[in-house]
Amino acid sequence: MDIRKVIEKIYNEVKPMFGRGKVADYIPALAEVNPRQYGIAVASIDGESFGLGDCRTKFSIQSISKVFTLAMVMRHLGEELWESVGREPSGTPFNSLVQLEYEHGIPRNPFINAGALVVTDRLMNLYERPKDSILQFIRENADCDDIYFDRNIARSELETSSRNMALGYFMKSFGNIDHDMDKLIDVYCNQCSVAMTCEELAKSFLFLANHGENPFTGERILSVSKAKRLNSLMLTCGFYDESGDFAFRVGLPGKSGVGGGVVAIIPGKLSIAVWSPELDSHGNSCMGIETLERFTTDIGTSIF
Amino acid sequence: MDIRKVIEKIYNEVKPMFGRGKVADYIPALAEVNPRQYGIAVASIDGESFGLGDCRTKFSIQSISKVFTLAMVMRHLGEELWESVGREPSGTPFNSLVQLEYEHGIPRNPFINAGALVVTDRLMNLYERPKDSILQFIRENADCDDIYFDRNIARSELETSSRNMALGYFMKSFGNIDHDMDKLIDVYCNQCSVAMTCEELAKSFLFLANHGENPFTGERILSVSKAKRLNSLMLTCGFYDESGDFAFRVGLPGKSGVGGGVVAIIPGKLSIAVWSPELDSHGNSCMGIETLERFTTDIGTSIF
Amino acid sequence: MDIRKVIEKIYNEVKPMFGRGKVADYIPALAEVNPRQYGIAVASIDGESFGLGDCRTKFSIQSISKVFTLAMVMRHLGEELWESVGREPSGTPFNSLVQLEYEHGIPRNPFINAGALVVTDRLMNLYERPKDSILQFIRENADCDDIYFDRNIARSELETSSRNMALGYFMKSFGNIDHDMDKLIDVYCNQCSVAMTCEELAKSFLFLANHGENPFTGERILSVSKAKRLNSLMLTCGFYDESGDFAFRVGLPGKSGVGGGVVAIIPGKLSIAVWSPELDSHGNSCMGIETLERFTTDIGTSIF
Amino acid sequence: MDIRKVIEKIYNEVKPMFGRGKVADYIPALAEVNPRQYGIAVASIDGESFGLGDCRTKFSIQSISKVFTLAMVMRHLGEELWESVGREPSGTPFNSLVQLEYEHGIPRNPFINAGALVVTDRLMNLYERPKDSILQFIRENADCDDIYFDRNIARSELETSSRNMALGYFMKSFGNIDHDMDKLIDVYCNQCSVAMTCEELAKSFLFLANHGENPFTGERILSVSKAKRLNSLMLTCGFYDESGDFAFRVGLPGKSGVGGGVVAIIPGKLSIAVWSPELDSHGNSCMGIETLERFTTDIGTSIF
Repeated sequence: MDIRKVIEKIYNEVKPMFGRGKVADYIPALAEVNPRQYGIAVASIDGESFGLGDCRTKFSIQSISKVFTLAMVMRHLGEELWESVGREPSGTPFNSLVQLEYEHGIPRNPFINAGALVVTDRLMNLYERPKDSILQFIRENADCDDIYFDRNIARSELETSSRNMALGYFMKSFGNIDHDMDKLIDVYCNQCSVAMTCEELAKSFLFLANHGENPFTGERILSVSKAKRLNSLMLTCGFYDESGDFAFRVGLPGKSGVGGGVVAIIPGKLSIAVWSPELDSHGNSCMGIETLERFTTDIGTSIF
Repeated sequence: MDIRKVIEKIYNEVKPMFGRGKVADYIPALAEVNPRQYGIAVASIDGESFGLGDCRTKFSIQSISKVFTLAMVMRHLGEELWESVGREPSGTPFNSLVQLEYEHGIPRNPFINAGALVVTDRLMNLYERPKDSILQFIRENADCDDIYFDRNIARSELETSSRNMALGYFMKSFGNIDHDMDKLIDVYCNQCSVAMTCEELAKSFLFLANHGENPFTGERILSVSKAKRLNSLMLTCGFYDESGDFAFRVGLPGKSGVGGGVVAIIPGKLSIAVWSPELDSHGNSCMGIETLERFTTDIGTSIF
Repeated sequence: MDIRKVIEKIYNEVKPMFGRGKVADYIPALAEVNPRQYGIAVASIDGESFGLGDCRTKFSIQSISKVFTLAMVMRHLGEELWESVGREPSGTPFNSLVQLEYEHGIPRNPFINAGALVVTDRLMNLYERPKDSILQFIRENADCDDIYFDRNIARSELETSSRNMALGYFMKSFGNIDHDMDKLIDVYCNQCSVAMTCEELAKSFLFLANHGENPFTGERILSVSKAKRLNSLMLTCGFYDESGDFAFRVGLPGKSGVGGGVVAIIPGKLSIAVWSPELDSHGNSCMGIETLERFTTDIGTSIF
Repeated sequence: MDIRKVIEKIYNEVKPMFGRGKVADYIPALAEVNPRQYGIAVASIDGESFGLGDCRTKFSIQSISKVFTLAMVMRHLGEELWESVGREPSGTPFNSLVQLEYEHGIPRNPFINAGALVVTDRLMNLYERPKDSILQFIRENADCDDIYFDRNIARSELETSSRNMALGYFMKSFGNIDHDMDKLIDVYCNQCSVAMTCEELAKSFLFLANHGENPFTGERILSVSKAKRLNSLMLTCGFYDESGDFAFRVGLPGKSGVGGGVVAIIPGKLSIAVWSPELDSHGNSCMGIETLERFTTDIGTSIF
C-alpha cells in the first residue's frame, strides 16, 4: 500500500472539516493562532518522509514536550522513577488534585501536569543546564537545529501558572518535589513553549518507532524495553481523559498537546505528526484525531 | 523461535515462586482453593495448542467472563452501547461508586463491576434465556461442551453481593439499569462462576486474536473493527487498577479474574491462558502476570 | 414581648412570597400538593399554643421523622450508637455515597439518608413492631391520636427507592446494616410518609425544648444530656447542605423535610413548626426558613 | 453557682490527665514546647476574671487567630464576603483541596486554612499595614499591649508552608485570591504565630460573648447580628473535623488551635480559655476539650 496516497486522500477528506472545535484560550499567546491550519507529516524508520498542508509551520508543542523530558529522565533512571510517579491512566475528568490528595502526592502518570512536573524536577537533578539540554535533545532527535523556545508563549504560560504552582507546592508538601517551585515552573513553562513543525515532530519521534534507537545516527536513546514501556504509557495516558477512547478508536501510542499537535507511532515502521489548532472538549486536536483514526482504518492496521 | 520451549523455560522458572500472594477470600467458596496450582496453555490461530502444569484443572473464571458478555452485547449493539458505559480506565483504587456518582451513573468501562452489570443488563434485553446463551457462547468459542456454572460459587457470590447490589441500585437510580436487580444479580453471579481450564480458556479467546473470527468454525463473532476495539479495551482496562502497569510491563490485551486466571492475546497469532490462585494486592494472579511478562520479554515482542 | 403578635406580623409579611421555590417532585405523590399553602404553629412548654394559616392541614413530614426515630433509638442506646453513625455535618452537596466510601460505611450523621437508615435499622432491633412503635411515639409526644402513615406516599417512595436501596446495600457490604434491605426500606418509607399538621408537629417537639421531658405527661423521653445532644445535632446537621447557613441565619436547632415542613425549638421555651411546600434548591421550605429567620430576628434571640 | 469553684474542681480533676495526646510536630518550633502545661482563665462581661495553672504562660494561638482576622473583615464587609467563602462545615477529614476543586475555589468556611487565607487576603485590601493592624486589634480586645508575633514560630511556619501555598495558588487559579502569594503567606504565617496567655485570650474574646461590644471600652466591634453569626460559625466550624462532635459534647461556640489553645464563650455571660499542648488526633487540645465538656456539664448549661 502506498502510504503517501492514503495520507493524501485523508488530507483532502479532512481538510473541509474546519470549524468543529476551538483554539486553546487558556493563555493569550495561544488564543491568537489562526485556527484554520492543518498539516501532516510522516517519517519512516528507513529514512523516507513527506508532508502535506501546513507541515512546515511552527506551532507550540505544549504537552508533547512531556514525552521528550520523560525519555531524557528514563534514560538515566530505572525503577526508582516509578516510586514518585505512577503508570496508570488518570481516570478523572476533573483535575489531578483530587487524586494527588488520595495518593499522597504521587501523580498517576507522567503525562498529567502533576506527573510532568515531577519528571522535570528529576530532570533538573540529572542535567546541569536543563533548558539547554531539553532543546539539544529535541534538536538531535529531530535532526534539525532550528528548534527553540517561544519566549512569548513561555512568558504567557508563566503568568497563568497558578494551577501548576498549586500542583507543585502540593506535591512538595508530600516531599515529592525537590527544587524551588519558581525555578521548576520556569523550566516547565519553557519546555511547553517549544516551537516545531509537523515535519520536525514526526522525525523527532522516530526513535520511539525504532525501538529506542535514533535511525539517523544509530545512537541508542532508550533500551528496547524502555522504549516499549514509554510507548505503552503514550497509548494508555497520552490523550488526557480521552486516552481510552483514543486507544479504542485509533489504537496507536501517541501524544497530543493543546497547541493542536498530535503525534503517533507505528512500532517498527513510522511516526506521523498532525497539526490543526481547533481542539475538542478534551483538549485534543479535532482534525488531528480524525486524521489518525482514518489513517489506521485505511492502512488496515493498529497495534491490536 | 519455538514458543513451546520458551513456555517450558518460563514454567520452570516461575513454578518455584509460590507463596507471594493470597487466594481470594471475599467468598468462602474461592478461599477453599489449593493455592499451589499453576497451569499454562497456548493456542494459536492456525490450530496448534499445548499446555503445561495444571492446565486441565477447572477454575472459576470470575471477571474474565466480562469479556464474553461484552462480546455478546457488542455483537448486537453499535455506538448506542457506549452511551451507557464508558471506555476509559477507571483510575481509582477505591471502588467505582465515587466515579459513578460524579458521572451520573455511567460506569467508566465495561470491565469494572458497575460496567459489567450494565453489559449484563443489556444482554438480558438481547437474549431470551441469558444464562443459557452465555454458556453456549463460551462453549462454542472454546470448542468444548464441558463448561458449566459452578453452583457452589454462584450461591456464595449471591450471598455476598451487597456491594454489587449497591452499584446496581445506584445506577438504577440514574436510569441506567433496566431489569429487576434480583434477576440481574442472579445472571451476573452465575456468569462469574463459570468453571474452565487454561486449555479451554486459551481456545475461547482465539476469536479475539483472529480479528473477530472463530478459527475453528470460520464463524465471524465480531467485525474486525469491533474485535480491535474490544482488544484495545482489554489492554487499557483489563487488569483493574493495575491496567496501566500491565500494559507497561507486558504490553498485550488481556483480562484477569480473582479466581487466579489471566488470559492474553497476540493479535494475528495466538492466545495464552495462565492460572495460579495466589493474587497480588490488586487482585491479579502473581504467577500469571509474572509468566506473561517473561513471555513477551522472551519472545521479544509486544504490541508496542 | 407578645410572641403571638410577632408571629402574626411575620405571617402577614411572608404570606405574599409564594412562587419563590418548587414543590418536591422526586415522588409523584408529593408533586401533586398545592404549593400555595402556608401555616405556622407555636407551642410553649408551659402549655400555651396557637396557629395561623394552614396550620391544621396534614402534610408529609418526610425527613422530620428522622428526629423521632433517632430519639427512639438514643433512648435505649448509649455511646455504641455513635460507632456506627457519626455526628459531623455531611459537608457535601453531592450525595453521601462518596463520603460513605471514604469512611467505610459509617454515615456522617443520623440526618442524612444513610444515617437515618442505620438509625431505623437499629430501631428494628429495639422494637418488635417498629412501624407501630414509631406511630405510637409520635402520637404520644404530639398528644394526638390522629397521626398515621400516608399509604399513597409510602407506596410512591417505595417505588422510587433505588438510591436508598443503593445506600443500604452499600452500608450492608461494610457490615453496618443488620436487617434485610427490603424490610428496612419498608419501615423507612413508611416513617417518611407520616402525615401531621403544624400544630401537631410543634407539640411533638416540645420534649426537646423541655430538656427531654414531655411537658404534657411529665414522662422523661430522653435524659437532659441526650436531649441537649440531639438538639446540637439538629443545629449542625438538620438542614441538609444548608445547615451551616441555617445556623448562621437562624441560630436554632431544627429539622426540615422535603414535604415543606420545618420545625425548630428555643431550648427551655417553645417549639415552632412552619409548613409551606415550595422548596429552595437545597430542599428546604423557602417560606419556612424565611419565617424562622424573621422570628429569631424579631424576638431578638437565638441561642448565640 | 460559684463558677470559680467549679473551675477549681475541674482543674484538679483534669490535671492528672497528661499523656493522652501529642504536641503538634508539623513545625519544629511547636514541637519543642513542654507538653505538661495546663492553664485555664475565665473572663466575664461584667469585668470579673480569674485563672489557674499556667494561665499566664504565652503560647502560640495558631488557628485561633482566624477568629480575629474574620472579625476584622466582617466589620467592614457585608454579604459580599460570603460570595468568596462559604459558611458550611467542611465535612472532610482529608484536606480542603478536594472540596475546593468541586466548589471552584470557594472554601467551605473561614476556619479551614483555605478560608482563612481568603479572609486574610481580603484583610490586606482593607488595612494598609495588615500585620500591624492585626496586632493592634488583638491588643485592644485583650486590653493588653504585651502581645506580639513569635518570630521563631512565624519563620518555622513559612519554611513549611507548601500546603498552604498550594491552597492559595489553587484558589488564585479560580480568581479567589487577589494578592501575591508570597506576601499573603507572610501575613498568614505571622498571624498564626501570635503569642498570648490564657488570661489575655479569654479577655480578647469577650466582645463575642458581649454581642459584639468590647465590655472594657464600650466600643462596638461587630453589630449584634454579625456577632451572633460569627458565634454560629465557631460552633459549627471551629473545631476542625471534630466540630460536630464538639457541639454535641460541649455545645458552646469556640475555636481551637494546634498550639493547644481552646477558647469558648457563653453568650451574654463569659469567655473561657484553656491551654494544654497535648493534642488529640483531630488537632484539638485533649485537656482543653475535656475541661470545656466538664464545664458545661457542671454548670448545667450549654446553648442547647
